[in-house]
Amino acid sequence: MEKKKLVIIGGVAGGASCAARARRMSEQIEIILLDRGPYVSFANCGLPYYVGNVIEQDKVLLVATPELFRDRFHIEVRIENEVLSINPETKTLEIKELASGHIYTQDYDALLLSPGAAPIRPPLPGIELPGIFALRTIPDSRAIKKWIAARNVSEAVVVGGGFIGLEMAENLAGLDIRVTLVEAQAQLLAPFDPEMACYLSSNLKENRVDLYLEESVIGFEQNTDNSLNVCLKNGSKIKTGLVLLGIGVKPESGLAKTAGLELGKRGGIRVNELMQTSDSSIWAVGDVVEVLDYVTGEETLVPLAGPANRQGRIAADIIVQTLSDSQHPSPQRNYRGTQGTSICQAFDLVAACTGINEKTLKHLARTDYEKVYLHPGHHVNYYPGAKPIHLKLLFSVPEGKILGAQAIGEQGIEKRIDTLAMAIQLGGTVFDLEEAELCYAPQFGAAKDPVNLAGMIAANMLRGEAPLGHWEDILTHPEKIILDVRDSIEYTAFHLPNAINIPLHQIRDRMKELPKDKEIWVHCGVGQRSYYAVRTLRQYGYDAKNLSGGLMTFQAVYPCLEKKNKVSSETIN
Amino acid sequence: MEKKKLVIIGGVAGGASCAARARRMSEQIEIILLDRGPYVSFANCGLPYYVGNVIEQDKVLLVATPELFRDRFHIEVRIENEVLSINPETKTLEIKELASGHIYTQDYDALLLSPGAAPIRPPLPGIELPGIFALRTIPDSRAIKKWIAARNVSEAVVVGGGFIGLEMAENLAGLDIRVTLVEAQAQLLAPFDPEMACYLSSNLKENRVDLYLEESVIGFEQNTDNSLNVCLKNGSKIKTGLVLLGIGVKPESGLAKTAGLELGKRGGIRVNELMQTSDSSIWAVGDVVEVLDYVTGEETLVPLAGPANRQGRIAADIIVQTLSDSQHPSPQRNYRGTQGTSICQAFDLVAACTGINEKTLKHLARTDYEKVYLHPGHHVNYYPGAKPIHLKLLFSVPEGKILGAQAIGEQGIEKRIDTLAMAIQLGGTVFDLEEAELCYAPQFGAAKDPVNLAGMIAANMLRGEAPLGHWEDILTHPEKIILDVRDSIEYTAFHLPNAINIPLHQIRDRMKELPKDKEIWVHCGVGQRSYYAVRTLRQYGYDAKNLSGGLMTFQAVYPCLEKKNKVSSETIN
Repeated sequence: MEKKKLVIIGGVAGGASCAARARRMSEQIEIILLDRGPYVSFANCGLPYYVGNVIEQDKVLLVATPELFRDRFHIEVRIENEVLSINPETKTLEIKELASGHIYTQDYDALLLSPGAAPIRPPLPGIELPGIFALRTIPDSRAIKKWIAARNVSEAVVVGGGFIGLEMAENLAGLDIRVTLVEAQAQLLAPFDPEMACYLSSNLKENRVDLYLEESVIGFEQNTDNSLNVCLKNGSKIKTGLVLLGIGVKPESGLAKTAGLELGKRGGIRVNELMQTSDSSIWAVGDVVEVLDYVTGEETLVPLAGPANRQGRIAADIIVQTLSDSQHPSPQRNYRGTQGTSICQAFDLVAACTGINEKTLKHLARTDYEKVYLHPGHHVNYYPGAKPIHLKLLFSVPEGKILGAQAIGEQGIEKRIDTLAMAIQLGGTVFDLEEAELCYAPQFGAAKDPVNLAGMIAANMLRGEAPLGHWEDILTHPEKIILDVRDSIEYTAFHLPNAINIPLHQIRDRMKELPKDKEIWVHCGVGQRSYYAVRTLRQYGYDAKNLSGGLMTFQAVYPCLEKKNKVSSETIN
Repeated sequence: MEKKKLVIIGGVAGGASCAARARRMSEQIEIILLDRGPYVSFANCGLPYYVGNVIEQDKVLLVATPELFRDRFHIEVRIENEVLSINPETKTLEIKELASGHIYTQDYDALLLSPGAAPIRPPLPGIELPGIFALRTIPDSRAIKKWIAARNVSEAVVVGGGFIGLEMAENLAGLDIRVTLVEAQAQLLAPFDPEMACYLSSNLKENRVDLYLEESVIGFEQNTDNSLNVCLKNGSKIKTGLVLLGIGVKPESGLAKTAGLELGKRGGIRVNELMQTSDSSIWAVGDVVEVLDYVTGEETLVPLAGPANRQGRIAADIIVQTLSDSQHPSPQRNYRGTQGTSICQAFDLVAACTGINEKTLKHLARTDYEKVYLHPGHHVNYYPGAKPIHLKLLFSVPEGKILGAQAIGEQGIEKRIDTLAMAIQLGGTVFDLEEAELCYAPQFGAAKDPVNLAGMIAANMLRGEAPLGHWEDILTHPEKIILDVRDSIEYTAFHLPNAINIPLHQIRDRMKELPKDKEIWVHCGVGQRSYYAVRTLRQYGYDAKNLSGGLMTFQAVYPCLEKKNKVSSETIN
């Protein structure tokens, strides 16, 4: 009997994972892995660091070679073979050998699509000029390095402030290239809320990156000295030696669409929880598929390596079960959806997030949520070297279910987001965070870890002990009473123009100065002293709320609001 | 009406947390915080680092002063006031003002006991000689520093290889003091299993610490030059300038016992889930109480700062509800038990654990569990600087519920244990770990994070895809077939004497060399290639198991077994 054939299109992340797992699940099927590029199973997340010479040799990026696939897994890898079309009726592919131009037909019993997502190249004038690069493959990274070396590039423009854009800005700067970053949105890193992303903007500027937010590139020109001009919507031109496009990616769903497979609203391939497409012999994984958001249940595109790998494993199990009377049938596993846990280092800061952000909650018109901001040290302050973690936690009201978290800082960011990601995955609440038992020694955390503190603040709010206020609300309602409970020396150095100052230790003696018939919004530097004041005031019958995150959050929120012109210039001096 | 009185004995961690939280919950009660020492609310976890001059000033260890308690919280702190006895019938305390010797009576409506645990000073000959220290308080740390400076101490003996012992060994070595560490057990760090703790032993030796395991101190002598001899059971004496006792702590439950409060089996105060003792007006928190192990449900003693703080908060809520018709009654919160999440840095290594260890499972005679060992990099190996994480995961069979985890390595340890601690807290399984979505960028992890890998290996085992074997079993059953699937060059460099070598890429061609009627225990370096081989062999009808963690685990397990004389010297050459 002829062996059943699994053919895989695309040999990175999801495709490679599926191939290896399928072989582990069955020695009885033939597995063919096709890639139009020269490499399979390479570490594309490492490419910016290879460009930046942090990773010195590109060979370390090759996780597995075609030879290894053959010798270890009996998997046939055909690199530089491009699939031209899929015929689901005959279960065949039309394939072009790129070297020879030869076109041939390949049949399959099961087909896995893992073509990934392609960098967006907007159809702007001059977009095809030499020196304008995207970064997706090892050849891309080599071309960029070669260009930089050949022209001794000293200035570069990065278009787009997402993960790749920021990582490339850092790596180019590390090569002593002066970087300009142009981002069309008002913020960097779209998965974050704007008031969180603002920490990154400041840090980029401190690292000599010229940052343009809310500025669009409208075209490119070549100068007579072969340098490029990046033309901005504001009319100015940036002369540069290299342009890196980091605008985003779009799923490479063209083949699937032509073959008549169902696509989702965002143009990705639609799959069920078994990673199966609308054709029962075709599966798809990775950046090309639309996944269900683990928190909202909505279809979305999340181009990340971790989910791609896990999807590949699950698809392999299902495919092997479908193709064979497996001796060891796996219990069926469903793909649970994607949380969007992600992380990015840019210069001094690390930014990580999991779950959904407030922009999404607003977009979904949800009102059953609350948020806390906090700025604890990444370890106890009495041990040298503590760095603040700027943390935002979103949770449902009144259940307290954790919806999402964002953290930015120099140290300990990934730990808190991983812990919160696990909490979200397992349906945890802020009450669970309050009671979480995490590692504490002075170098690593605190008896009340930032994760505990986030839970405590949120739980205090949900229990009605310490209601929270938010700066965006107070800034748009300047008539509210603002009480600043910092010491007078801090107040004198800086304060909101309409804030009353009663230092915390005087609150019991001086609370009679405050009105009982108005909401009092209390703040301090980061929200701890004001929490104490709120508790005291509330027990004496005052309607006090704690302005979450204190002035440190104010400093982040204010510029975002100012941009939206929601606050007048008189609100703050 | 007179205010209700909450009196708290012991002003660190749990006691201080309770005091502050009680005030936040009620302005209507009187709160008195008693401590026999000169300080309250100090950071005792920082003391080793103060001795080691990593923390330069002891004032940073003072989290809150009596003045701050008074000004901020209207809490009366009485330092250097020692409680002599508790009379639960009259709800009074007999208290001695240490400075004046004056003895007075204090009444209470609610009493919180947070006296902590005292370092064990075994009644050995010479134990009271000058130069023998324990480390619990700021005065202790000052005395040690003074002793070192005054005598220019160049050699020290640390007795006990627990958290304090290891931290002190590191900090003393940092002062250019040559350290000898004597531990009566066969391993360091009792919360870990011996084969995990062995990584620490090796590293101590690499850092010039003279380590004696399974060696007891039987007494101390003073030499004529005022130096000390530490007398060992083996008859030898270690001449030294300073002795640090880090043998462990025992709950200071004497007052409670005398007052007739119920104690647990281990001598700690027994409390219910509301932290209430057998007297309904007396609560207890922190190192003095017996807590329920979150995983086993057994009573145990876990002297850790995080649980003490959380217990203090919960006790405060309950006490305030009991004492008052609170305007804002908190929903009742129970203490959920203690997981034992803890972490310790010693020289180059960080060791952290959560949940229960295998020693405990064996002690409980549980057979419904399995374990995996793995040694992944703390981030992808293609990014420079990856350090191995030695990880052990314990889980229930067949449910896969996570029971405990231990991790040791240089980097990224606390992140994995915190993530696993959260998983344990929320009842997670290895199948959840397999699907966990964690942060991945090259500097921070991998598309398959160590936490995912642990879950995948365990889940593969539970699904029957890749059964696991363990080195302790194979070493005691030398008749088993051992298959080494590393390359022949690796095999030639080192191999088990009775191991057959078939490199992974030859497995399909050469498997006929193996018997089908015997268990084949397959290994490689760390367990990945052997997993591939096991999958192939099993599909062809061989009874293959993967030796968990490969030779890297063997190297850890073997010395532990050798010590137990379970393996003959011929088992391994």
